[in-house]
Amino acid sequence: MDINIKIGEQLAQLRKQKGYTQEHLASILELHEDYIGKIERGQRNPSVKTLLLILDNLKIKYSDFFALLEDA
Amino acid sequence: MDINIKIGEQLAQLRKQKGYTQEHLASILELHEDYIGKIERGQRNPSVKTLLLILDNLKIKYSDFFALLEDA
Repeated sequence: MDINIKIGEQLAQLRKQKGYTQEHLASILELHEDYIGKIERGQRNPSVKTLLLILDNLKIKYSDFFALLEDA
Repeated sequence: MDINIKIGEQLAQLRKQKGYTQEHLASILELHEDYIGKIERGQRNPSVKTLLLILDNLKIKYSDFFALLEDA
């Protein structure tokens, strides 16, 4: 599976666990809601910086995120 | 410090530990040698996909890389 699809699925799952909507997350990050949706569907190739900014806002440690990704 | 600078420094250190030159790594990845140098100096904003490809080739677990980054 494409890595961007795996990353997107993991992000969507964690965002929902935190009870955030795409809209809420987008507004915190000052990103467009559509962009969050596209990242979650693996339709964008985000920079490391953008991914880490999303993880900061979801209060997820980077190493924990990638450990989840490796186990998925 | 900008996250791309931290990432670049960490990558450069790990590449040297593996005994790879920038040129060697670039040729494996089919990327330009200059691009590797710029990533290592934090002068590029690489995609997650590119970073993970580099880590794959350095045989470094993603979660280990980000754990090092968090401790740096």
